Amino acid sequence: MENRASGQHISHLFDEEMENVRHKVLTMGGLVQQQMEQAVLAFITSDQELAEKVLQQDDTVNNLEMEIDHDCIEIIARRQPTAIDLRMLISVIKVITDLERIGDEAGRIAKMAIRLDATDYYHDQYHELNHLVEMVKGMLNGSLDAFARMDIESVAKITRKDEKVDREYTSIIRQLITQMMEDPRNITRMLDVLWTARALERIGDHACNICEHVVYIVKGDDVRHLKQEELEHKIKK
Amino acid sequence: MENRASGQHISHLFDEEMENVRHKVLTMGGLVQQQMEQAVLAFITSDQELAEKVLQQDDTVNNLEMEIDHDCIEIIARRQPTAIDLRMLISVIKVITDLERIGDEAGRIAKMAIRLDATDYYHDQYHELNHLVEMVKGMLNGSLDAFARMDIESVAKITRKDEKVDREYTSIIRQLITQMMEDPRNITRMLDVLWTARALERIGDHACNICEHVVYIVKGDDVRHLKQEELEHKIKK
Repeated sequence: MENRASGQHISHLFDEEMENVRHKVLTMGGLVQQQMEQAVLAFITSDQELAEKVLQQDDTVNNLEMEIDHDCIEIIARRQPTAIDLRMLISVIKVITDLERIGDEAGRIAKMAIRLDATDYYHDQYHELNHLVEMVKGMLNGSLDAFARMDIESVAKITRKDEKVDREYTSIIRQLITQMMEDPRNITRMLDVLWTARALERIGDHACNICEHVVYIVKGDDVRHLKQEELEHKIKK
Repeated sequence: MENRASGQHISHLFDEEMENVRHKVLTMGGLVQQQMEQAVLAFITSDQELAEKVLQQDDTVNNLEMEIDHDCIEIIARRQPTAIDLRMLISVIKVITDLERIGDEAGRIAKMAIRLDATDYYHDQYHELNHLVEMVKGMLNGSLDAFARMDIESVAKITRKDEKVDREYTSIIRQLITQMMEDPRNITRMLDVLWTARALERIGDHACNICEHVVYIVKGDDVRHLKQEELEHKIKK
């Protein structure tokens, strides 16, 4: 009886540790989500103060990444988990790498916002980005939601959006090139819009990676590098 | 005696498995190194056939990544390693993510090489990239070498190069902007050079990440997000 009770105690502690890791990942996810939204807003409205705030959050995100990483390795070494628990911990280590890179991309956008001269500010110069921003925001929210609920139902919808993001991105680049040719004095500013579009497109890729990690945790299938149809087939299986 | 013999047998098998993983990582490293060098050469010399070859290697790199990943998780689940062995396996999972991303960047350069019209080819348009290419090549070689020999002696030298790469990259971007303003008909081509410079700069970042993973394996210290001086201090300690 004592052994069983102590077994239950250990298992309860283990559950708590796993829940703690999960909770920290979601905190980190919320932070980089906020960083991305604030960086884009700072860039579009030329708000340098907000951009500084985004950059200041970088340390918190980095520390959280290292802390979660350390927690996962510690749990693996001490508890020697297998099956879904091991998949969860290994995948968390990968998810937080993607989250940290999303934070980096947000930081790149924020740095451009700081460099902008507020007097140059023309709101309608950035309307090209609006659609892309909304799509990528949706993908990131969706991927974090899939992780929070360990639900792979919505994964195909999110990764399908990535194809739309790529098309939108290509079309923005084309528009920007035309504008640069028409008015070469605007090249520097247009390049900033172009880098921002690129950063957003990358954030979309990271959101897809997070979705793939969730599929791996839930089903044990490695669905990286699959075509959209193959992915959808694997998820339904 | 029997137990000891069987213990030795298991330990021997374990060593073999670890050596096998290490060997595969180096194979993957050699492949992406080749991809990067060939992609740049294809871009500079407008060699579309070579660029196609780079893209074809992508599947091999991706499959190797998934295979190594699977091997590591399998070994962790079955052997329940701790200390340096666990650090090695977790770090390998991260190193191969960086290697795969380097392959992706090489693929991006190759795609631009394919899009180029060979008749437009002017060799001296790309001389801006030469210095950057050599620096990044050196960083990647150095980081793979550090991994192969588990030697952190050269790490500070490699990460110090990253600051030079960033400066060189910024200077290339400035030159390109000037050229675009002077001759707006050349904007598309100049943007390709700009994306290539960006891809190379990112490859340098991944090489630094690999170095940081090697420090973690050897010393158990997480040296990500440190300033250069702090990193050098940690390594010497």
